[in-house]
Amino acid sequence: MVTLQGTRPFVSGCRPEFGYGPLQSSKLGFARFSVGDNAVKNLGLCRGGDVRLRYSRIIIKAMEDSAAYLTKDCSAISGKDLQMMFGNEKSTNIVWHKSSVDKFDRQELLQQKGCVIWITGLSGSGKSTLACALSRCLHSRGKLAYILDGDNVRHGLNCDLGFKAEDRAENIRRIGEVAKLFADAGVICIASLISPYRKDRDGCRALLPDGDFIEVFMDMPLQVCEARDPKGLYKLARAGKIKGFTGIDDPYEPPLNCEIVLKQKGDNCASPCNMAETVIRYLEEKGYLRA
Amino acid sequence: MVTLQGTRPFVSGCRPEFGYGPLQSSKLGFARFSVGDNAVKNLGLCRGGDVRLRYSRIIIKAMEDSAAYLTKDCSAISGKDLQMMFGNEKSTNIVWHKSSVDKFDRQELLQQKGCVIWITGLSGSGKSTLACALSRCLHSRGKLAYILDGDNVRHGLNCDLGFKAEDRAENIRRIGEVAKLFADAGVICIASLISPYRKDRDGCRALLPDGDFIEVFMDMPLQVCEARDPKGLYKLARAGKIKGFTGIDDPYEPPLNCEIVLKQKGDNCASPCNMAETVIRYLEEKGYLRA
Repeated sequence: MVTLQGTRPFVSGCRPEFGYGPLQSSKLGFARFSVGDNAVKNLGLCRGGDVRLRYSRIIIKAMEDSAAYLTKDCSAISGKDLQMMFGNEKSTNIVWHKSSVDKFDRQELLQQKGCVIWITGLSGSGKSTLACALSRCLHSRGKLAYILDGDNVRHGLNCDLGFKAEDRAENIRRIGEVAKLFADAGVICIASLISPYRKDRDGCRALLPDGDFIEVFMDMPLQVCEARDPKGLYKLARAGKIKGFTGIDDPYEPPLNCEIVLKQKGDNCASPCNMAETVIRYLEEKGYLRA
Repeated sequence: MVTLQGTRPFVSGCRPEFGYGPLQSSKLGFARFSVGDNAVKNLGLCRGGDVRLRYSRIIIKAMEDSAAYLTKDCSAISGKDLQMMFGNEKSTNIVWHKSSVDKFDRQELLQQKGCVIWITGLSGSGKSTLACALSRCLHSRGKLAYILDGDNVRHGLNCDLGFKAEDRAENIRRIGEVAKLFADAGVICIASLISPYRKDRDGCRALLPDGDFIEVFMDMPLQVCEARDPKGLYKLARAGKIKGFTGIDDPYEPPLNCEIVLKQKGDNCASPCNMAETVIRYLEEKGYLRA
């Protein structure tokens, strides 16, 4: 007898009765079973789908609710047991008690999939402009998007951070973590920040399930950005009044393998609307604009 | 001639053409005007509504977009000028360029109002259980809610924080800031954490517009919580293996003036569903379950 209690399965196309939950947290649910039990192998139904379960997540941790507990620790399950658990028989006696609302439920409500659109590029490359255009386009289609902007978050969550190297990294890490929460909430989260280092961006990418981190590179020449100089920062950097300014005396590491590159064609920049449409087409193709 | 560009007005019932935006950020829009201009007083249309504009917010800050700039600083506007700006004439020449999607738009999409439900109380008082029940109830009504749980956020955003006094305060501050972002996104954000000190909770309350921070106190006797001891932490604290545990050797400061108190009646605890319904009734009465 296998009892599962918690959230809906992580595996797409898999019925709640036969799978484990996404387990972003230690409190979402719990599983009680005897590994030797024949029934355990019936969990194998998940196999048919896109199996994204990780072994480390197989045991659902205890809920704060006093009724929940563990009977077995992850480390106590051998590879053979895991194989057993993902056999091919159909389950007949797995009981699933839905205990909370999860990402899948929220996505169904919103008729979209939560994800992070990470816009990176030099100051003045048009990140905020694209973010605004994108949020307008998505809203007009009835989709819920939310912009996390590097500068704005610095006024609130990250007001304790300065501009030295480790503070910049921490600024990006926190925005990545918050973006992950928004994606989990089912929201299309648009993060717009220079984020000059690959390492920091890749760290944020690693927080999300495959595919859910969509990196958009605003590939604008430095000269164009500097000519725009919307905040007058390039001028200050050239005058030596700002140190470590990206593009001037600090490097920008362009993405090597990002999902979308937006660049100038000849002398003309694409309009914000056109750029937003490129991103929207990507989201549509990848299925993010439906549940 | 007055040109306004940015988000929709903060003032309910006020048309975009005649008001200023909510300005949660420095990038949402900008205003260009000459204070002496007769037209400025026409902004007074906002007066008819629930005027929640703050003087400090009257000047919309520059956008990253290079077209935006300021012509006047807040400090340069006298009280008399402000009065002029909020006269009673009807505007004829104010142009509003909608530049972004704001909280009002998202609330209309979701048919609800973004807010923060802050559940505070001792370990084992049922905070997570209420949060889950509440999220189920709201979801079943087609409302988008999202749970921020003290313990869970510690695995991500706040993984750099320990349990010493300043880290605990910072844990709460960050969750408050993230909850504010969710509320701004239009989501009903359920924050569930012990948050033992009034000062920390009040700090989070201060981040939100009046009414949007709904403090729910799980008023359970220590004995009940300790008897439940879902995580075995009271036992460890009594044995001296955990120091500074709320309720044992660290104080819990009950709210003095919170929105909702949930307490045991006689020997019986209300069921999670009943408690959730109490909160839902409050949200309904205050208009949070409609746009």
